[in-house]
Amino acid sequence: MPQLKPTNSRIAPLFPISDWLKTYTREDLSNDLFAGIITAILLVPQGIAYAILAGLPPQLGLYASILPPVFYALFGTSRTLSVGPVSIAAIMIASSLTSPEVSALGHPIQSALMLSAESGIIMLIMALFRMGSLVNFISHPVLAGFTSGAALLIIGNQLPLLAGLNTPSCGINIGCYSHYFSGAITNTTLLSLAALSLLLFFGKPLTASLKILKVNRSLSTALSKCGPLLTVILATVVVSYFKLADQQVAVVGNVPSGFPDLNMSFVGDIFLGSGWVRAKLLLPDAAFIALIAYVESVAIAKVTANLRGEKIIPNQELIALGAANIVAAVSGGMPVAGGFSRTMVNFAAGARTQMAMLIAASILSLAVMFFSPWFTNIPKSALAAIILVSIIRLVKIKHIVHTWRFDRGDGIAELATLLAVLILGIEDGIVLGIILTIASHMHKTSQPHIAVVGRIPNTEHFRNIKRHQVETWRHLLLIRIDESITFANIDYIENYLGIELRRRPDTKHVVLIFNSVSDIDATALEALEQFNHGLQAQGKTLNIAEAKGPVMDKLEKTDFLQQLKPGKVFFRTEDAVNELGYMA
Amino acid sequence: MPQLKPTNSRIAPLFPISDWLKTYTREDLSNDLFAGIITAILLVPQGIAYAILAGLPPQLGLYASILPPVFYALFGTSRTLSVGPVSIAAIMIASSLTSPEVSALGHPIQSALMLSAESGIIMLIMALFRMGSLVNFISHPVLAGFTSGAALLIIGNQLPLLAGLNTPSCGINIGCYSHYFSGAITNTTLLSLAALSLLLFFGKPLTASLKILKVNRSLSTALSKCGPLLTVILATVVVSYFKLADQQVAVVGNVPSGFPDLNMSFVGDIFLGSGWVRAKLLLPDAAFIALIAYVESVAIAKVTANLRGEKIIPNQELIALGAANIVAAVSGGMPVAGGFSRTMVNFAAGARTQMAMLIAASILSLAVMFFSPWFTNIPKSALAAIILVSIIRLVKIKHIVHTWRFDRGDGIAELATLLAVLILGIEDGIVLGIILTIASHMHKTSQPHIAVVGRIPNTEHFRNIKRHQVETWRHLLLIRIDESITFANIDYIENYLGIELRRRPDTKHVVLIFNSVSDIDATALEALEQFNHGLQAQGKTLNIAEAKGPVMDKLEKTDFLQQLKPGKVFFRTEDAVNELGYMA
Repeated sequence: MPQLKPTNSRIAPLFPISDWLKTYTREDLSNDLFAGIITAILLVPQGIAYAILAGLPPQLGLYASILPPVFYALFGTSRTLSVGPVSIAAIMIASSLTSPEVSALGHPIQSALMLSAESGIIMLIMALFRMGSLVNFISHPVLAGFTSGAALLIIGNQLPLLAGLNTPSCGINIGCYSHYFSGAITNTTLLSLAALSLLLFFGKPLTASLKILKVNRSLSTALSKCGPLLTVILATVVVSYFKLADQQVAVVGNVPSGFPDLNMSFVGDIFLGSGWVRAKLLLPDAAFIALIAYVESVAIAKVTANLRGEKIIPNQELIALGAANIVAAVSGGMPVAGGFSRTMVNFAAGARTQMAMLIAASILSLAVMFFSPWFTNIPKSALAAIILVSIIRLVKIKHIVHTWRFDRGDGIAELATLLAVLILGIEDGIVLGIILTIASHMHKTSQPHIAVVGRIPNTEHFRNIKRHQVETWRHLLLIRIDESITFANIDYIENYLGIELRRRPDTKHVVLIFNSVSDIDATALEALEQFNHGLQAQGKTLNIAEAKGPVMDKLEKTDFLQQLKPGKVFFRTEDAVNELGYMA
Repeated sequence: MPQLKPTNSRIAPLFPISDWLKTYTREDLSNDLFAGIITAILLVPQGIAYAILAGLPPQLGLYASILPPVFYALFGTSRTLSVGPVSIAAIMIASSLTSPEVSALGHPIQSALMLSAESGIIMLIMALFRMGSLVNFISHPVLAGFTSGAALLIIGNQLPLLAGLNTPSCGINIGCYSHYFSGAITNTTLLSLAALSLLLFFGKPLTASLKILKVNRSLSTALSKCGPLLTVILATVVVSYFKLADQQVAVVGNVPSGFPDLNMSFVGDIFLGSGWVRAKLLLPDAAFIALIAYVESVAIAKVTANLRGEKIIPNQELIALGAANIVAAVSGGMPVAGGFSRTMVNFAAGARTQMAMLIAASILSLAVMFFSPWFTNIPKSALAAIILVSIIRLVKIKHIVHTWRFDRGDGIAELATLLAVLILGIEDGIVLGIILTIASHMHKTSQPHIAVVGRIPNTEHFRNIKRHQVETWRHLLLIRIDESITFANIDYIENYLGIELRRRPDTKHVVLIFNSVSDIDATALEALEQFNHGLQAQGKTLNIAEAKGPVMDKLEKTDFLQQLKPGKVFFRTEDAVNELGYMA
């Protein structure tokens, strides 16, 4: 095995920003400026919408779009990832804040900031223990099933808002959905339908029209990404002009003006009575948010990095996202992650580096300083329409069919995770998905390759007796184990040995050929000891051949080799045959 | 891989009892009769003691020793396993019954029967899904750490009883233990010390004396196993004679006379209000009890089966233990499993088949029918002494040292599990142990063997460039992956490919040699698609060589091979070299 550490600290300086900053050109800047403006145009409505989706005041989404991306830019290894509020984290926050224990504590804002702080700290601890490879515990099908399920939950949450109703989501109660039609408030529903139409028009129809009109590519990109902002502006104008806020149309309401105060009070708060209770209560939810935020961010970062031959360093991402979340808590923002749609927009708009996100963050801070009074009359239904249109692409039913066809086990894991998210909820869903994936992995690795071997006549080569014409010896059973022997496969190996021994009752000497065994763990050692003990009770011997150096070193630390006597360790299988094959 | 199913239904008839019954001899019977009597002598005090350890009336332990072993004898594949109440399950039952939610429901007996019924049903469901190999999820070090931790908890629970105190266990609060000395009740403590001395004398000192006196082996075995019963009889006589029950010495109290009523009322009860609440509340505890009961029983069964060259069939054990637990519930008994000390006694006393346990069960049923009034004055301190002496052997601190020396990772898992059981409790302890084991297993399997290869000149053999003198080609990168590609190792593989590509910027064609790849899962496929996409964006191609039939079949179900174009699939690596190695 090559001496290779994929996450090598020499190639991962603490500030990856220095990599690109020292070779930054004016051309890079012009690209990043354009991408930054486009992304900011998307960030304003998304920030407000995701805060509302999480059940929080709008400013928590806006604040989360300012300093966190700046800190990600300092520490992160992706040049195009757009860090800020994201829909999946928002629904997880909502699920945490509405749980009976948490909502009983009151002060949802404080809880949200605690979630930011804790998930940031968890990510930093994971980085400290170099747990970046933890991402391996979640397979793509499980992540896809989880994303589809969470997206469906989010859509379910938007429907009452679109109909102007103040009822909870119907969830998986199909019958309940008819109430959305019967109870819908007319003016809100009309506004929602108008917003949806506009947003849909800004998708393919607009791009196609612009192509026919031969508009240049940059302008075309810019225009097509303005859909959400334009929708918000038009809807707000309509609401203000017709004074709809007084006529049952729910609006965002007052958004405090100015830059957020930096506030570390929650730190001290932890050590006082109620803060500590809150911190303890929210810890499991924060751990789930941290896990999902990290896994989703790295998955998205890899897509764009891969297209440019850049490299994402998982442990460095943990540091960057951890810092971003802690900063979110300090600057009054909700938990953050890399967002899929924003990152894609940023990438498509030509972002070269994180400078684009620094520019977007500056625009956001101008927005909260000077334009926040304008946000008061934004109708929630227009934001719901924006969420609906952007989230519906995350529901990938076809993906399940593809996965199922390709690999049955993966397909089951994906479908089960989706259903579990819908039925059992977000956290149980992801836990079930992870358990399913690991269980099927353990099952696969629990069946190593083993062969009874014999000698190809007139050579010293030993081969599988099923595939080759080989010599065998009546009292001698030669068995080659082709993998490391561990708790995961020792059961299978023991069974195999038992079956072969019963099939060959004349066997007096068993030789295990260890040339492919590079490790033996404690479970396997105990089982081998028992197996040897059992053989000896029947007057048979257990022997070992061709053990590698490290395996011998390990065995010599125990008294296993003494226990084997009169069984022996042979250097070559040939030696074992010469000594044992011709004994009576 | 051989077509081998370790748990084959043809070799596992539903009633393994028929295997030995049809060849049963008079000699077998005389052996089994002796072993059965010895085991019954141990079962009476153990049954009462473990019921009290679980916080239940004594008859629940006695009833659990009658019908459950009979049903195990019908279905089980071990000929010597002694199924009945066991200490580890007893402490788990106690932990469940004393939890605030469960004790708030009242009726601890009903809860205990529900635990029996549910753990039996869970085992049958596991058998249905052929989950016998689930035992692979718990490594021996984790099981050993768990057993040591649980044994320490049990010892902690016995100490107040020995001192005659009615206080809860001190647990990990070291300072608290001094109270046992200062507060000890004199007559109970004297009784405890006498019982302990007698029990200790019945260990090595007695066996040594009998050896010197040249007593024959059967009689010697019989005598040495009578310690617990003799202790109970003497202690009970002392208590009765001096009327100590009136002087602060806690006794077992009234034990109902007669055979238990068969009672299925809990089944109907589930569908009524409080039964359903109880069933739901106890389900997680029942699942843990089922898991541990199963794993411990199979581990014990394997030890004795191995010594006689017999075979334990895990799925059949699930059926047998499941049936035994359901019968325990029906006949008013606590949950059951295979007990280590009893099985060893049974085996050492010469038991040939489960007939020994059938005889023991008959003796037990006579005991409850005719002798139960005699149980009233058994002092709890004597039972505590019996538990203490039998359980102390399960605390294996040296084992941790051995494991640690042999395999650091396993040693950490064992120690962590022990500490977690003591500090966090039984269930969290075992969960932590399992997580640790799986995480380290995943970590090990996440680093497959990969090599950059070149051609040995004038041959068609391709070998690792680090170990052999080989030819390579400037634009061609040949990489051999030596394992199936899955979500667990794709991250490592991607990193490896990325590093090799950055090291060789002239590469235009990457060829992955798949001759050792026997499976590709959905996560790996998506990553390969992305990798190919990234290569194409840089004007490079991805190619595959030597893919096996099943892997090609799987890939052909997707459009991956179309996506590769102009990359290709080559039958031999040689073909890839001839086509790509000499291109500009």
